[in-house]
Amino acid sequence: MTDDADKPVFHFTPQRNWMNDPNGLVYLDGVYHLFFQYNPDGNDWGNMSWGHATSTDLLSWAEQSLALPYTQDEQIFSGSIVVDHDNTTGFGQDGVVPLVAIYTRVTSNAVQAQALAFSLDRGMTWQKYHANPVLDRNSSAFRDPKVFRAADRHGRERWVMVAVEAEQRMLLVYSSHDLIMWAYESTFGPFGDEGVVWECPDLFALNLNGDPSHPRWVLVLSTNKVPDHDSAAFSFTGHFDGHVFVADDAETWRPLDYGRDFYAAVSFANTPDACRIILGWANNWQYAADAPTYPWRGAMTLPRQLELTETGITQNLPAVTEEALPAEPSQTYQADHLEGPVIFDAGRHYRFRLTCTLDDAAEVSVGLLSGAGMPAAVLHYAAGTHTLSFERTRSGRNEFHPRFAEVSSVRLPSSSSPSPSSSPQSLSQSLSHRLELDIFVDGCIIEVFANRGADTLTMQAFSAPDAREIVLSADGRAPIRARVELYDLTQITVANSRMLMLENVAGPPSE
Amino acid sequence: MTDDADKPVFHFTPQRNWMNDPNGLVYLDGVYHLFFQYNPDGNDWGNMSWGHATSTDLLSWAEQSLALPYTQDEQIFSGSIVVDHDNTTGFGQDGVVPLVAIYTRVTSNAVQAQALAFSLDRGMTWQKYHANPVLDRNSSAFRDPKVFRAADRHGRERWVMVAVEAEQRMLLVYSSHDLIMWAYESTFGPFGDEGVVWECPDLFALNLNGDPSHPRWVLVLSTNKVPDHDSAAFSFTGHFDGHVFVADDAETWRPLDYGRDFYAAVSFANTPDACRIILGWANNWQYAADAPTYPWRGAMTLPRQLELTETGITQNLPAVTEEALPAEPSQTYQADHLEGPVIFDAGRHYRFRLTCTLDDAAEVSVGLLSGAGMPAAVLHYAAGTHTLSFERTRSGRNEFHPRFAEVSSVRLPSSSSPSPSSSPQSLSQSLSHRLELDIFVDGCIIEVFANRGADTLTMQAFSAPDAREIVLSADGRAPIRARVELYDLTQITVANSRMLMLENVAGPPSE
Repeated sequence: MTDDADKPVFHFTPQRNWMNDPNGLVYLDGVYHLFFQYNPDGNDWGNMSWGHATSTDLLSWAEQSLALPYTQDEQIFSGSIVVDHDNTTGFGQDGVVPLVAIYTRVTSNAVQAQALAFSLDRGMTWQKYHANPVLDRNSSAFRDPKVFRAADRHGRERWVMVAVEAEQRMLLVYSSHDLIMWAYESTFGPFGDEGVVWECPDLFALNLNGDPSHPRWVLVLSTNKVPDHDSAAFSFTGHFDGHVFVADDAETWRPLDYGRDFYAAVSFANTPDACRIILGWANNWQYAADAPTYPWRGAMTLPRQLELTETGITQNLPAVTEEALPAEPSQTYQADHLEGPVIFDAGRHYRFRLTCTLDDAAEVSVGLLSGAGMPAAVLHYAAGTHTLSFERTRSGRNEFHPRFAEVSSVRLPSSSSPSPSSSPQSLSQSLSHRLELDIFVDGCIIEVFANRGADTLTMQAFSAPDAREIVLSADGRAPIRARVELYDLTQITVANSRMLMLENVAGPPSE
Repeated sequence: MTDDADKPVFHFTPQRNWMNDPNGLVYLDGVYHLFFQYNPDGNDWGNMSWGHATSTDLLSWAEQSLALPYTQDEQIFSGSIVVDHDNTTGFGQDGVVPLVAIYTRVTSNAVQAQALAFSLDRGMTWQKYHANPVLDRNSSAFRDPKVFRAADRHGRERWVMVAVEAEQRMLLVYSSHDLIMWAYESTFGPFGDEGVVWECPDLFALNLNGDPSHPRWVLVLSTNKVPDHDSAAFSFTGHFDGHVFVADDAETWRPLDYGRDFYAAVSFANTPDACRIILGWANNWQYAADAPTYPWRGAMTLPRQLELTETGITQNLPAVTEEALPAEPSQTYQADHLEGPVIFDAGRHYRFRLTCTLDDAAEVSVGLLSGAGMPAAVLHYAAGTHTLSFERTRSGRNEFHPRFAEVSSVRLPSSSSPSPSSSPQSLSQSLSHRLELDIFVDGCIIEVFANRGADTLTMQAFSAPDAREIVLSADGRAPIRARVELYDLTQITVANSRMLMLENVAGPPSE
């Protein structure tokens, strides 16, 4: 399919050039729209514009023409899109519901301010609002507006924007009735370490255990450390009254993902059944500019539907995505007493589901993208400490940046227990005896969903084209009961794209 | 269990010293007795005596004390044992049924003649008949008597002996009422290539498709070529009227096994339900003396129960052996489209069941005892030509003899179709789409049962102690649907020996 062995097939990458943050994620009339920070002119950051891609399953993406190109006077930084069902902006014409993009424009004076553009043809073409910007603090780091509907304390719905003063480590909340006139509401922060830049906020409600009578609010925030630019995404649970966000524990920065390549995650607007689905940029500012790919650079993560349980946020594939994946594994494996290595010829695009039963003395490792006996990435789980770690130090093209070949690790379960009714001890005991890893490998992108999405871990690994093996082994002093299901996804997007072409016949604009 | 990584655990080997042909195979009172050509004094051929081992499942063997030691005047060459239920010999005392061994004695004048010994304690101790030999042709190559009951043409049962004039390539048939006085009946041969020595004949009836009204006779014969001593075992189907054996086709030497290490196979006497179970010596005279093992040298094959179908003899494990093997695999694997290699950490003692569905362009290979990517033995099946081949040329300790590292191959199905009612074409078509290999690896012994015992292939392979892997791959132009069940047999004989000790409590002699 591609001669580029690192290129993902079921994670979105542009055909060519630099990409970073997902922008303007919105669902409309059966199609998921992904816009993204994009350099139309090169493989490095710059000339920031919004690229565009569409999908019906969040797995097979069709790249569309450039949505919002940079101009000599304006770069198009990150932002969000809303469906203005009630035409609050007046951008709608002849009953067509407008899509409205709220983006950060960066002008030649380096001021970052929020601006609007709208589309009347389902996101394919865009016009900028004639009186941009709509919100300007004369700041050089006021950016990443995420806009959603929320009721004020009197129960009246209106638009709410969260955006950051990035360098001041502040989340700013604004409200508006028309997306044009904005009123300041509140500030969250500064918190956490100095010398950290905040970016790409998102704020949304999740129903605890799916119960609509128990909504809780979740703030998602990405941070980029200075000076080394190590970047990651975090979540805070808390309360939002439509005006002010109060975190349950602002001191605890809970990573949304425990890998090193998960950043700028934000959620889709207007999703069916109000599912909260996020995409992230599978990269780290620390070394993103050096990532050894060409002519494309940067990929999105898989879509993740967030749900909230007593023990924290879970992230799993949305149903629409699961349904697009093969139901039957192409290879299965089972061992009552796994000891030495078992090696699968898995290719470079697959889903590897591993279920282990193991005791405290057991350790299991999964070498991925292994060739000639050397895995480009290794997942390792030590049952005694419940620690899942990930390293890409052994082989592969890992020398392009001195900080790339580091180890990530997470103690499972990482989630705290917000409710005293759950017993951390029994949870810990049960997890010491069972581990479920749902691992997606897609060229250079590795995403791990541990224990049904209780924790995730996203990492890039650049390997030789013939690094096709999975090496599964018990490393500890105790054998492991293991079950494997391996799904070949090499062809998945070819098949799905074909369906997409059949199904996604252009219809009349949404009215 | 053993520091000797080549030593089998579920194939019989003596604890120390040289072993070759199985002798005196007999079942009595729940115990299978294996006697064998044995040098009590060294690791090379010589000082030939009968060793002794017992088993209840033909898998876990307990080595017993030396049964028939050589003396200064007499070496004890191969032969058979019968249960003299009717005390035709008069060796029985006080109602005890004697076991009678009919063996070839070789005296210092180099004459080979048939002699008797008997046991009144279930084979544990032996007395030689005082008037040996009982059958002497003053020949230097008259040996390997196999004795059984058969009716004469008047329907009267008596003892029948088949033995060989080895260098004259003749099978001699004698009869006796008391095992002492023998009458010449007939000669089969000479046939086949000159310069071949015939050895270890066996003659028995198999019921076609298990139907007692359709018995057919099978002659099993081992041959040893001169001068290179390449040795193998063959079978002929035919007719035996109690006096004369007539082969259906004396020109067609059908190998009993398509490997290079299957010799001197003979069957057990007195088995329950008249099962015909054979054991062979898993070796080849060509290089047996150089086999790089110490302090033992030589192993028996697994027991094989013979059955006769329209398309030939099948060889499968007896039920008593199957029942002693684990029912649940320790590892399983399944692939819809096997392509590149899948590697299992299998250890050095296991059963590997592979079922493939494949088309004519497909080839599958199974590397066994592989370490550091190099298999000591490789099974390869080319579906287009139905050819199963086996080679041990790539690695391992294969340089001890120049002829060891050769390739064996068999076209599947190898069996002819004696009955016109079966359709070779449809059989061939079905086999081109399905392959079943039941592979036993046990230290240095590899035994393959192909397509439910339609063909077997036994080979030795001497490998490094850390050669623990199975490498399964599709080599051809077409992918393969494959299912694997892997049973770890490292501990099998420990468990079974424990049961043996519990069950095999000495009781009174059989009466």
